[in-house]
Amino acid sequence: MFRPLVSLLMLSGLIMQISSFAKADEGMWLFNDLPTKLLKERYGFEPSKEWAEHLMKSCVRFNVGGSASFISSTGLVLTNHHVGSDTLFKLSTPERNIMDVGFLAKSHNQELKAPDLELNQLVNIKDVTAEIKSSVTDDMTTEQAVAARRAIIAKMEKAALDETGLKSTVTTLYGGGRYHLYQYKKYTDVRLVWAPETAIAFFGGDADNFEYPRYCLDACIFRVYENDKPAKIEHFLKWSETGPKENDVVFVSGNPGRTSRIFTMDAIKFQRDLSLPYIMTNLRRQEILLQQYGLRGTEQARRARDDMFGVQNSRKARLGMLAGLQDPQVLADKAAAEKALLAAINADPKLKPLAAAWQTISETTAKRAELLGKGVAVNSQLFGIALELVQMAEEDQKPSGERLPQFSDAGRESLLQQLYSEAPIYADLDHVLLADSIAKTLEQRGFDDPLSQEILAGKRPAGRATELMGYSEVMSVASRKKIAAGGIDAINNSTDLMIQLAKIINPEVRRIRTITDQLDEQDKQAYAKIAEARFAVEGTSSYPDATFTLRLAFGPVKGYEQDGQQIPAWTDIGGAFQHEKKHQGQADYVLPASWKKVEASLTKATPFNFVSTADIIGGNSGSPVVNRAGELVGLIFDGNVQSLSGNYIYTDKQSRSVSVHSSAIREALQTVYGADGIVRELGK
Amino acid sequence: MFRPLVSLLMLSGLIMQISSFAKADEGMWLFNDLPTKLLKERYGFEPSKEWAEHLMKSCVRFNVGGSASFISSTGLVLTNHHVGSDTLFKLSTPERNIMDVGFLAKSHNQELKAPDLELNQLVNIKDVTAEIKSSVTDDMTTEQAVAARRAIIAKMEKAALDETGLKSTVTTLYGGGRYHLYQYKKYTDVRLVWAPETAIAFFGGDADNFEYPRYCLDACIFRVYENDKPAKIEHFLKWSETGPKENDVVFVSGNPGRTSRIFTMDAIKFQRDLSLPYIMTNLRRQEILLQQYGLRGTEQARRARDDMFGVQNSRKARLGMLAGLQDPQVLADKAAAEKALLAAINADPKLKPLAAAWQTISETTAKRAELLGKGVAVNSQLFGIALELVQMAEEDQKPSGERLPQFSDAGRESLLQQLYSEAPIYADLDHVLLADSIAKTLEQRGFDDPLSQEILAGKRPAGRATELMGYSEVMSVASRKKIAAGGIDAINNSTDLMIQLAKIINPEVRRIRTITDQLDEQDKQAYAKIAEARFAVEGTSSYPDATFTLRLAFGPVKGYEQDGQQIPAWTDIGGAFQHEKKHQGQADYVLPASWKKVEASLTKATPFNFVSTADIIGGNSGSPVVNRAGELVGLIFDGNVQSLSGNYIYTDKQSRSVSVHSSAIREALQTVYGADGIVRELGK
Repeated sequence: MFRPLVSLLMLSGLIMQISSFAKADEGMWLFNDLPTKLLKERYGFEPSKEWAEHLMKSCVRFNVGGSASFISSTGLVLTNHHVGSDTLFKLSTPERNIMDVGFLAKSHNQELKAPDLELNQLVNIKDVTAEIKSSVTDDMTTEQAVAARRAIIAKMEKAALDETGLKSTVTTLYGGGRYHLYQYKKYTDVRLVWAPETAIAFFGGDADNFEYPRYCLDACIFRVYENDKPAKIEHFLKWSETGPKENDVVFVSGNPGRTSRIFTMDAIKFQRDLSLPYIMTNLRRQEILLQQYGLRGTEQARRARDDMFGVQNSRKARLGMLAGLQDPQVLADKAAAEKALLAAINADPKLKPLAAAWQTISETTAKRAELLGKGVAVNSQLFGIALELVQMAEEDQKPSGERLPQFSDAGRESLLQQLYSEAPIYADLDHVLLADSIAKTLEQRGFDDPLSQEILAGKRPAGRATELMGYSEVMSVASRKKIAAGGIDAINNSTDLMIQLAKIINPEVRRIRTITDQLDEQDKQAYAKIAEARFAVEGTSSYPDATFTLRLAFGPVKGYEQDGQQIPAWTDIGGAFQHEKKHQGQADYVLPASWKKVEASLTKATPFNFVSTADIIGGNSGSPVVNRAGELVGLIFDGNVQSLSGNYIYTDKQSRSVSVHSSAIREALQTVYGADGIVRELGK
Repeated sequence: MFRPLVSLLMLSGLIMQISSFAKADEGMWLFNDLPTKLLKERYGFEPSKEWAEHLMKSCVRFNVGGSASFISSTGLVLTNHHVGSDTLFKLSTPERNIMDVGFLAKSHNQELKAPDLELNQLVNIKDVTAEIKSSVTDDMTTEQAVAARRAIIAKMEKAALDETGLKSTVTTLYGGGRYHLYQYKKYTDVRLVWAPETAIAFFGGDADNFEYPRYCLDACIFRVYENDKPAKIEHFLKWSETGPKENDVVFVSGNPGRTSRIFTMDAIKFQRDLSLPYIMTNLRRQEILLQQYGLRGTEQARRARDDMFGVQNSRKARLGMLAGLQDPQVLADKAAAEKALLAAINADPKLKPLAAAWQTISETTAKRAELLGKGVAVNSQLFGIALELVQMAEEDQKPSGERLPQFSDAGRESLLQQLYSEAPIYADLDHVLLADSIAKTLEQRGFDDPLSQEILAGKRPAGRATELMGYSEVMSVASRKKIAAGGIDAINNSTDLMIQLAKIINPEVRRIRTITDQLDEQDKQAYAKIAEARFAVEGTSSYPDATFTLRLAFGPVKGYEQDGQQIPAWTDIGGAFQHEKKHQGQADYVLPASWKKVEASLTKATPFNFVSTADIIGGNSGSPVVNRAGELVGLIFDGNVQSLSGNYIYTDKQSRSVSVHSSAIREALQTVYGADGIVRELGK
């Protein structure tokens, strides 16, 4: 499945935002620059301004890293179970394990408030390219360019926030070719209404993940509140009576997280030979660690589960990406296209200077290769909190425009919501993660490295983790607030061992951050040139690489061929029961009791999951799928394994997005969960 | 648990054989050089020549990598379930899953013949140091020294085989300070008599592995045959009536695989910072790969299980070793000892030249670091067979003394027993392993590396694996024999794709092998000097580092303190039932039905597992534990986690070996398995 992106972005450390050029149903299009001509030519459909605005405003982004939509005037929000699972997990206890048994609120006062969810509804887009670009001049060093751009963005975001009260974020598009100011209405009182059991939401488990055919009810429903009452929502999606038919074009509106389709061959080779293998090594280590912790007991298994899902999912997604890049044919095509483009550029005296951008990427890539594994990544929630407290105190010494972006005034509210979250942190799990992070640092930097020695402080990694946690108060939200209130003095004088560890590691984190910021800036300038060259040579309309902002994708509902077999576009509810039978009681293939009890009452022919050619990627999870009439017909939850190389290269031969069918959701709500109240609200 | 060592040795590529100096109950002593004085002083026990010879000849080595003993005149052999499991797995089918349900032969004709087991009984040891040493002279290059030593060893082994008919192997001891010729009686008709269910043999699974207290019946019984009849055995162990009491000294006679206690600090740092982390990365990758394959279905899970146990076990053992080396105190002690030794050497003009050995190790270690991950490791059974066929044909062009050791005349019979084994190879599992090995090679060498490209041959890794397996005959034993019979011409003209792949990779395998052979030779000469220096300075009696040959260890049955708690020396059968209850139905903590059925009839107070300070390591699995009278009182199956750093440094504070108590084995045979016939034969 496409998991929330937060950890994905953190893991890679690189967020590229670059452009590409569309073919077939390729494209993650900007809402303020939709491919209307293309849609009309290919599908005889011309989206009106109202159609687009209504769809845009019916969508919400889950800031943990997913997409969603309003599905009633009464504030109901539909997303994937696996997007909601971070919250389902935080709301669970050993006694009320929502992940296992699901949840249904029978009335508003039974709805469970999420501890730290933030939902963003995009309400306005403004092109601010000229203003941003003018802040950076040719005579600036890379360091000055980073600072200048950071300053104007912080200023602009703060001004927009002050003026409108809306969360305002400048997004870099086409790798620096365009800058748009996105403005969001924020919802922070979000309550759980319904979630099915993981057994059906993630039926087939890790084995079926990224595979198709599938049989997953990967859905859950929240409700947004304002002033302690269900919010009144103007823009929401109607619920389709029937869902789509085969070959119907459908539209996906959501927030694809990141693609890298404009990458040069040098950048792709770095991904293939170094970056992806390195990330996968870390993911496998994390997976084994969490498994081992989970073996300690059933409660530990429960505590580890959310992280485990995330890690396994990332590992499988990366494996698919890497397999795509290890396909000689795919690479040969990409190399040939790059060669042709460069030939055209070099043949044109006006374009020729742009070819230098490839050299820049080659150089920044070599520097990134040197950095791989050189930082200090401490994967502990408590350490993360301590480091954030230390950096916040330091950054707050500076004006907003000079701070690291996450500490700017405009972002403060979202920052503190996370920092002061009351969601449980499990000390035993955090101890395991902390001890392993220390051990890993020793391995990566060498045991005798001075920073390694300072981190270790003469103890074994596990003993040091015990000591750090024993003499730290950051587990308590009240203590965090107290430390934050004390500002830089509180940090300087702190005797809290976790804060002290954060102070030990912080300079190295900042050093690496400064280097990568500069590499990102150089890439930004280079990819802007590459985009310019492609515009000039290929002359087609285009869309920017994904940036975890709202995009429109589209394509017909359509099966595909695999290993000589025709894979149908649909599965149905009856198929889920057959799938269970075929797997003879294997773990992850057992339907929940709630389904078995009502098997006879279920309409087996109800479509369950379906595929389309719409161009999506991680971050699109929870995206509504709508028809020409703008009615909800499905809910994106995955891409098949062939779609994963779409991070670098789109092809619609076998690549498919996978959705839950709207009729399956309604049938399950009615027949399995007896959620008649919700069904009455759908689309009303 | 201590797993069979074959994969361990293959994984590391380094087999060091070096010496150390004993304190407390430290020591893995040679049977022809027992510490009689020490035993007399400390335990008032003076083993007679007859006592030692009887014990030595009562022991057998499992060539898959474990230890065992004769326990009846009728050929019964006792070892661990996890030593036998390679065979239990090969004898299992989807219909008769011996791993799950166990096995009991009610009569001789029900006993199941192992497809490729070889058992070795040590019958003679001869010191051949002078002859071997004289073959290498000071004026030889490293390359010449490797060749000269290899030639004399091959010649000596072949002559000894021809003279006596016994399998004859020269073992390098004290890192090259001594050479002994070991002569073994071979048993190759080995049949399974009894094995319990994995659920009780490995109760607590991966979570309890290397932990204590434990409750495992990690035992199984084979019988050796000669001329299709149960072999008549002269030397076998009597079965103790009661087993040991607390503080009784016990003796462990088995084949510790490898220790590295004489390692210099440079060599230890290489293990800590590079080698162990690298090996663990590979093990985690393998573990995840096997897990994913196992998710395909219950039969796939069964097929993967034996490899999975091995990989998980290695991973956990390595983690323990690494944790030991990441303990600043342990390292400081080791460094201080080395510093003191070097000071003494440098202070003595006669010894001073020996100090150069440390520099040699420093240099060879740096070269080993450069080689890490540079080779090509294809982890597929079919590829392994193809490579062996290719190398055998090449090597057979040379006289025996010039061949790689495993292809010498003296070893031919053992080589062919493995190569022509009829044990099942699962094509789908081998495909997964082969595809992943190819992908890993691309990652390690780089996709654009010429050898990577030749291996890939224009396909994706998975597609290439399919092609290779589709056009290869090496799955069939008859085909292997045909290819082998055709000699070098059959290899040169082969159109078999797997043979062709082996020919592509073989030069690189040989290149790396040549380099490591030379590094091993340089190490051998350097460690011989270091051993000499230590003899001179420390002047104590000593034992050589482990070499997977028969050794005697000893120490009292004794509990220990951990995290402020006193861990008792014993567990009992009743404790197993309590342990199950505590873990509430978690996987791996469910006792088999056979035990639950007879719970009321079991004597709950029967001792189950116990610990002692005897100095053991991987390879010792299955070793008999005997009392002063030479009676069998236990069966080694594990060391606790604190013992794992014993690979580098012995300490008896918390380090313990873990055994199954002889009384538990008898009680289970009688009460649970109704194996009255076996019980009547025990010790008779």
